[in-house]
Amino acid sequence: MVFDPQDNIFMLAGPVKIHPRVLKAMNTPSIAHRGPEFTEVNRELRELTQYLFQTKNDVAILSGSGTAGMDAAMANLLDKSEKALTINNGKFGERMGQLAKIYGENIELKYPWGSPPDLGEIEEILSKEDIKVLALTHNETSTGLTNPLPEIAKLAHKYGAILVVDGITSVGGIDVPVDKLGIDVCITGSQKCIAAPAGLALLSVSKKALEAMHDKKTYYLNLKKHVEKLRDGQTPYTPAVHLHLALLEALRMLKEEGLENRIKRTASIAEACRAAVDALNLELLPDRKYASNTVTAIKYPEGISDKDIRGRLKSEYGIVIAGSQAPHKGEFFRIGHMGLVQFRELLATIACLEVVLAKAGWKFEKGAGVAAVEEYM
Amino acid sequence: MVFDPQDNIFMLAGPVKIHPRVLKAMNTPSIAHRGPEFTEVNRELRELTQYLFQTKNDVAILSGSGTAGMDAAMANLLDKSEKALTINNGKFGERMGQLAKIYGENIELKYPWGSPPDLGEIEEILSKEDIKVLALTHNETSTGLTNPLPEIAKLAHKYGAILVVDGITSVGGIDVPVDKLGIDVCITGSQKCIAAPAGLALLSVSKKALEAMHDKKTYYLNLKKHVEKLRDGQTPYTPAVHLHLALLEALRMLKEEGLENRIKRTASIAEACRAAVDALNLELLPDRKYASNTVTAIKYPEGISDKDIRGRLKSEYGIVIAGSQAPHKGEFFRIGHMGLVQFRELLATIACLEVVLAKAGWKFEKGAGVAAVEEYM
Repeated sequence: MVFDPQDNIFMLAGPVKIHPRVLKAMNTPSIAHRGPEFTEVNRELRELTQYLFQTKNDVAILSGSGTAGMDAAMANLLDKSEKALTINNGKFGERMGQLAKIYGENIELKYPWGSPPDLGEIEEILSKEDIKVLALTHNETSTGLTNPLPEIAKLAHKYGAILVVDGITSVGGIDVPVDKLGIDVCITGSQKCIAAPAGLALLSVSKKALEAMHDKKTYYLNLKKHVEKLRDGQTPYTPAVHLHLALLEALRMLKEEGLENRIKRTASIAEACRAAVDALNLELLPDRKYASNTVTAIKYPEGISDKDIRGRLKSEYGIVIAGSQAPHKGEFFRIGHMGLVQFRELLATIACLEVVLAKAGWKFEKGAGVAAVEEYM
Repeated sequence: MVFDPQDNIFMLAGPVKIHPRVLKAMNTPSIAHRGPEFTEVNRELRELTQYLFQTKNDVAILSGSGTAGMDAAMANLLDKSEKALTINNGKFGERMGQLAKIYGENIELKYPWGSPPDLGEIEEILSKEDIKVLALTHNETSTGLTNPLPEIAKLAHKYGAILVVDGITSVGGIDVPVDKLGIDVCITGSQKCIAAPAGLALLSVSKKALEAMHDKKTYYLNLKKHVEKLRDGQTPYTPAVHLHLALLEALRMLKEEGLENRIKRTASIAEACRAAVDALNLELLPDRKYASNTVTAIKYPEGISDKDIRGRLKSEYGIVIAGSQAPHKGEFFRIGHMGLVQFRELLATIACLEVVLAKAGWKFEKGAGVAAVEEYM
């Protein structure tokens, strides 16, 4: 079989499957980005983004990837005389630290991929150092681990640090109640749990964060300007108009399903996926207690290669899953199950996984993975 | 008539009319942004972008607006100890200066909207000051004026300054031979002469510019990283996948027409538009010698308001044109005629303009504007 990029089961950890309704929303002629029609689009987007973040805070939508959102948060909040504390237990936590180092001074707490941070160490640094910004990746896409956000949020508040949360693969799939947790800046991306095309970063920004931002340090990524303009349904620069239209449709679909329902459905599919991992005698990468509900990372057993599994899933069966990133390339694979992914797609993925595992010589009871998933349906 | 955002004649100065072929390219399921299929897309995009810029230099494609491209150029090239010279004779030249001021020291030469810069003054500053970057907006969209790029380029080279050109509404519509003119960084946007949706910035970057860039100053807008990744058909961060697909189709269409042909066609439509302006006893905003071929800016005669003309064109006849921006709001209007705009659309626009001008009491010979356009067909 030749892989067909137009017709397959798409289980990446983002971008994710996009609904035809969302694609259709982009099939529209140019509209004036300063006209009343588009202002109305942005007004509705603003409300739906607040719904998504469970917040009354201001929000912003930047034309750029999730990383643009992380960059905007750190660039505006930090200057060279100010300190951040970041947690690196994966590729995206590491990125948060790299950003903090560019714009300010950074203290990084580093843990192995798949391990949670030590809350005692976080508190120790917060108590000893003058930390302006505590920044973390909530759901570490690179390792399938969800960091203990409520506990870390409490520590940030106890010591008065501004809390910046990369919720790129959690918001809309895992509960991230921004106001309840007191998150000052929360960032997500259009192509993850929202299931829109890639290219937009969504942010919620608290009053405290707005007041702590530096003026005249950034231009395109000036978060304050984005926030202020969106209050009037505007953007400071020409936005990616067609992506706004797609995002609107995707957020409407999320609201129709209900945020709570989507989070529950995502959790249920994730539990089923983990049950299948057990049934196939495979092992999760992260500490099980912290296993993510939006992406499951699974270790390759010794002697079984990425090519055997991920390669054949794609080329022979049209199933797209994610590999692992440097410096752990080839050590594990990841199944994304956020957004609009349904049980039917997980079932097909697990069934095909059984086939390629068996072909690679792995021992398990055929059908056991699928049977484990069925228990959750 | 109620204005129909799906069905109208769209004559903004960007975003512009998008061809159904380009819209169709976005109607595709998610594809893996690190997979071989998308790498191939980026490789072809790289070649077509070099064709567009008439360059053998490296190029980059950033997910963000044209302003993101301008920001990336200035942020990477300047630090606080370095000087830029910018030319402000409109909103976008002013923006170049604002960017230079954020990242470095800036000397700004300011001229009235619609007036060209004084080459003698530019040379004087270049000869007296240690200017690292000379940055200008080639085609000033806000005023319909094209700055004398070849002459300014010569001055930059004479004094060894790095030449940064905002070609956002010129590249692909006005001749901008990057290698021939020795432009170090040239920036354009997807939604202008290329006629793709908004949301991507395209840049060409010379070896000299790459070597003059500062490391570790930027992250999302790190131009060097974007350039290096694109050499291998990659992007440093998740790109706006669907916009890449649309851009590819739009650049293929441009290549099919031929860059030279498109530039000629654009010039011919622009000349016809200016002839219509004369025939209707109206006046161009810019000095005629510098009138732009991609956007025509026309002064409102005394007593005739933006609402009379632009408002009625939209609400009564479904013709979308641009107004003027602060601080000259309401003083003139602009007709965009770049990308895929054809004579048929210009004719409809000029004819409707005749109707609303007459209704507003302006004196001219009815049919004269349209007749003037016909002479160029």
